Amino acid sequence: MTISPLATPFPELPEIAGVRRGVATAGYKPWTRPDVTLLAFDAGTSVAGVTTRSKCPSPEVELCRRHLTWGAARGLVVNAGNSNAFTGAKGAEACARQVAEAANLLGCEPAEVFAASTGVIGVPLPVEKAVAGVHAAFAALGTAGWLDVTTAIGTTDTFPKAAVREAMVGGVKVTLVGFIKGSGMIAPDMATMLGFIVTDAAVAAPLLQTMLEAANRRSFSCITVDGDTSTSDTVLAFATGRAGHPLLESADAPGADAFAAALHDLCRELAQLVVRDGEGATRFVEIRVTGAVSDDSAHRIGLSIANSPLVKTAIAGGDANWGRVVMAVGKAGEPAERDRLSIRFGGVEVAANGMVVPGYDEAPVAAHLQGQDIDIAVNLGIGDGRATVWTSDLTHGYISINADYRS
Amino acid sequence: MTISPLATPFPELPEIAGVRRGVATAGYKPWTRPDVTLLAFDAGTSVAGVTTRSKCPSPEVELCRRHLTWGAARGLVVNAGNSNAFTGAKGAEACARQVAEAANLLGCEPAEVFAASTGVIGVPLPVEKAVAGVHAAFAALGTAGWLDVTTAIGTTDTFPKAAVREAMVGGVKVTLVGFIKGSGMIAPDMATMLGFIVTDAAVAAPLLQTMLEAANRRSFSCITVDGDTSTSDTVLAFATGRAGHPLLESADAPGADAFAAALHDLCRELAQLVVRDGEGATRFVEIRVTGAVSDDSAHRIGLSIANSPLVKTAIAGGDANWGRVVMAVGKAGEPAERDRLSIRFGGVEVAANGMVVPGYDEAPVAAHLQGQDIDIAVNLGIGDGRATVWTSDLTHGYISINADYRS
Repeated sequence: MTISPLATPFPELPEIAGVRRGVATAGYKPWTRPDVTLLAFDAGTSVAGVTTRSKCPSPEVELCRRHLTWGAARGLVVNAGNSNAFTGAKGAEACARQVAEAANLLGCEPAEVFAASTGVIGVPLPVEKAVAGVHAAFAALGTAGWLDVTTAIGTTDTFPKAAVREAMVGGVKVTLVGFIKGSGMIAPDMATMLGFIVTDAAVAAPLLQTMLEAANRRSFSCITVDGDTSTSDTVLAFATGRAGHPLLESADAPGADAFAAALHDLCRELAQLVVRDGEGATRFVEIRVTGAVSDDSAHRIGLSIANSPLVKTAIAGGDANWGRVVMAVGKAGEPAERDRLSIRFGGVEVAANGMVVPGYDEAPVAAHLQGQDIDIAVNLGIGDGRATVWTSDLTHGYISINADYRS
Repeated sequence: MTISPLATPFPELPEIAGVRRGVATAGYKPWTRPDVTLLAFDAGTSVAGVTTRSKCPSPEVELCRRHLTWGAARGLVVNAGNSNAFTGAKGAEACARQVAEAANLLGCEPAEVFAASTGVIGVPLPVEKAVAGVHAAFAALGTAGWLDVTTAIGTTDTFPKAAVREAMVGGVKVTLVGFIKGSGMIAPDMATMLGFIVTDAAVAAPLLQTMLEAANRRSFSCITVDGDTSTSDTVLAFATGRAGHPLLESADAPGADAFAAALHDLCRELAQLVVRDGEGATRFVEIRVTGAVSDDSAHRIGLSIANSPLVKTAIAGGDANWGRVVMAVGKAGEPAERDRLSIRFGGVEVAANGMVVPGYDEAPVAAHLQGQDIDIAVNLGIGDGRATVWTSDLTHGYISINADYRS
């Protein structure tokens, strides 16, 4: 596996009070690497989550949705190498059994344990391996670092992805650590993207849920690699409350803003890291859409551009092919007026008022397209709606990975 | 340009009474090949058309829409090498000027002349070349064969695409000839889809329009190469009425059914030919969706599968990765129940009731995937809606063509 040219170094990550980590090898595939991760949380930890919009979700996703209604967490189990998706009653039983086993070991209710699995679709999670794996991970609690768990939840990821933020809440410093896996089948609402955030802040579950959903709308829902949506996408946030400030229960409580901003910022970094590990990616692309009739409309236009194979291959070729951006705006199905549209690459206006700008000089734009970070701005000129989305280019590497990868 | 491995031979095509053809070289690019096509129709020819849904259509598309309201045609001009899209007032003037010139030469109203252009976006059609080209094509009327015009309208096409059908209307044999260019139903720049159908049948314009729209819904609207939509997509049907049967004016007139069926069948073959010339295509894929809540829902699910980069790369790799089909069904946003879904590859059931079939033998499926014609059937199991769509695989060839191609 070649490391993505867009990879960034793994950051220094502090401990989060109230969280213990363990990893083990269940052997879901013929390998020796750790593929089961267990996180144990102190009593009193709240939880929030967002999951895939796929109509064919995995049993782990369904379990998380049920358990989220309780709002309390003591454990998280993550399996890598087998997604357990589309495996019928057998898969659901395997998931329930592994979670029950974890609950027994942790001395809590099964409803306080969360699960996520990623890997091949259609093969039921082997229950013996899953149970043995969670036992071994429990025995190893306290021995695994952040890098260990980040690596253990990965599949086709080419580099480990994590981030950290701090915020002041009620005069107390709180810390948020997030780690994430994902590199293909990435689109808002799907893709096997699994992201986990842990914090020592004290946040009531309903507020944490509201904050996570708001952050998700401007982070994980704004990235796409290939427009494909996973049956297993899951982002969970756990708040142990060990930092010692008074419990945040409403959005207008002192410090809630600061925490929400840190959470949003963390989610955006994690989301962008996934794009940076997009399968075959050689360029990181930010697409800013303004002047649309609404933010939602801008978001859909942004994704139409970000998902266009022709735009993505042009970028892969270092080609300032703004005509393909026009095409992608036109096909989005959203309100647009050809003759009010303007487009910039790297800050340079290339088209305005329905045609190329007079005296257009391609040289600075071509130079921008040779870089790794590509900036495309589209102004619809018909409203105040705006959105920013992120994607990668579409290269031979994507084809090689996905035409050959398999079970 | 390597000829598509899915290419089929150019068929024998009869003359259509009331139609004359000419081609010429305007030189829109530095080449010597014919790039302007003129078709002249006898007085009394009716016309129908369907055009792109892009919000950023070319001036040629806008002109066709205006002229279609009259329902009469005496001429068609097609330019290859320059799409004239996103070229502002200058491009619209160039289009109008070329059409006016053609009308003068043909001795008809400009409203009876139709136009289509395909090629690079953003460069106004050079008006001197366009006018000189249409004059030369007029002078050449009667000298060009079907293969000549089919080749002259092509751009990145790797083989010429045309088809023929016959039908009996009022005891008279009528003939329909169609020719088409496109190598991504959906791709701007050089890959716009332009399709033209000519027949000696006598069909009133409103009925021809209804029939063409119905045929389009089950043909051109059911193909995708890359999910990208051109600013210039156009299909026009011209009926000269020279076959000699009584004018068809309503869908229940004798022979109307036979003509509509032949038109639909012709459109389907033309549409499939475009997929067979899909950029980089090595496999032709038919996706049949049944058991959806409605035909429209089935159509959207079919396109979700057909546009999925992960499904398309799996097929490119000869991989019976039905999990990706589940993923694409799940992300379509249409009603689906995971545990009622079944999937077949090449007629072999691989998954049913939310999981892989007991004793699944991959060998016959793997063998099917090694062929050039791939058949995927998905039964949602929740209704009577059905649709069939066609696509190609996603290969290194697509990346090479689109990452390197440019103005």
